[in-house]
Amino acid sequence: MHLLRDKILKEGKVISDNILKIDSFLNHQLDPLFLKAIGDEFARRYSNQGVTKILTVEASGIAVGLMTGMALNVPVLFAKKKQSSTLDHRYFSSTIYSFTKKESVEIFVSKSYLGPKDRVLIIDDFLARGEALRGLREIVRQANAVLVGVGIVVEKAFQDGGRKLREEGVRIESLARIASLKNGEVKFLD
Amino acid sequence: MHLLRDKILKEGKVISDNILKIDSFLNHQLDPLFLKAIGDEFARRYSNQGVTKILTVEASGIAVGLMTGMALNVPVLFAKKKQSSTLDHRYFSSTIYSFTKKESVEIFVSKSYLGPKDRVLIIDDFLARGEALRGLREIVRQANAVLVGVGIVVEKAFQDGGRKLREEGVRIESLARIASLKNGEVKFLD
Repeated sequence: MHLLRDKILKEGKVISDNILKIDSFLNHQLDPLFLKAIGDEFARRYSNQGVTKILTVEASGIAVGLMTGMALNVPVLFAKKKQSSTLDHRYFSSTIYSFTKKESVEIFVSKSYLGPKDRVLIIDDFLARGEALRGLREIVRQANAVLVGVGIVVEKAFQDGGRKLREEGVRIESLARIASLKNGEVKFLD
Repeated sequence: MHLLRDKILKEGKVISDNILKIDSFLNHQLDPLFLKAIGDEFARRYSNQGVTKILTVEASGIAVGLMTGMALNVPVLFAKKKQSSTLDHRYFSSTIYSFTKKESVEIFVSKSYLGPKDRVLIIDDFLARGEALRGLREIVRQANAVLVGVGIVVEKAFQDGGRKLREEGVRIESLARIASLKNGEVKFLD
């Protein structure tokens, strides 16, 4: 997606060899029309797949998940990172480790909103080591739902999460795949 | 907003005299087209006000904030509840207390995305005691930006946050105002 690459080159900030900050339109400030274009692109790639539900995780996945759900006209479910007093006790859960935040978090999805009839498209902003994806996939598995595929805005292809999950048979569509962040420079794959 | 009232009556769950759970379309699962209607309604109420930025707070505010930003064609900024390694040290911050979650959290907004030229519309899902609103208003104040007003999906009017803030001169537009949740029943104001 050329538009996305251009925006990453123009507005992204390379914090280290591993960390790219995209706070101007994706992770802190949101650019609604641009995110709509991203949602439309995921919907195009997963059209005719019978997707019944988008699954993502708070907080950064919500915006792009919502735009994809709007384009596909299906509900969007975001996994919660904390049990709130309004989340009842019937939930699926799994644990994910964030290398960026250096902590493990448990994520929760109510059993009311995911089940064996669902065909699930997982959407997230970043894919690096694949921890969040594995946690979300585990929740799809617990629900006996079908995982149709995954949509990722930015894949850090120099880390191995995407490769391993593809080898396990997961369809992953990444709109931008980064080959390297070395020397403060963003280099894309292909 | 009749559509919203109907949906609350049909899908909302009264957990206690103080807590209404709206997990089916607002706080856990998201209904994209319905949230778009909510965003369009906020945009209608705040059209011609020169809004330059939507401000909300993660996670539950993001979806409705994004839809409002899309309708007004302005960027959406969501305050973060944790300093991530990709958030630099130039930020506004304030502390809010969540009575639902029974904890204080500090919220952060990068100085890169909010400044004196901004006319800010604050959007959030719920208004009860007004703690989150006060925290967000404090951030607008720190940025020397203008607070145009506030858009709330569900106001618990039996708590005093909305009344006090209106007395302080803040324009608050709530799409549904709840008079009582007693005896497991949702009663609306007016």
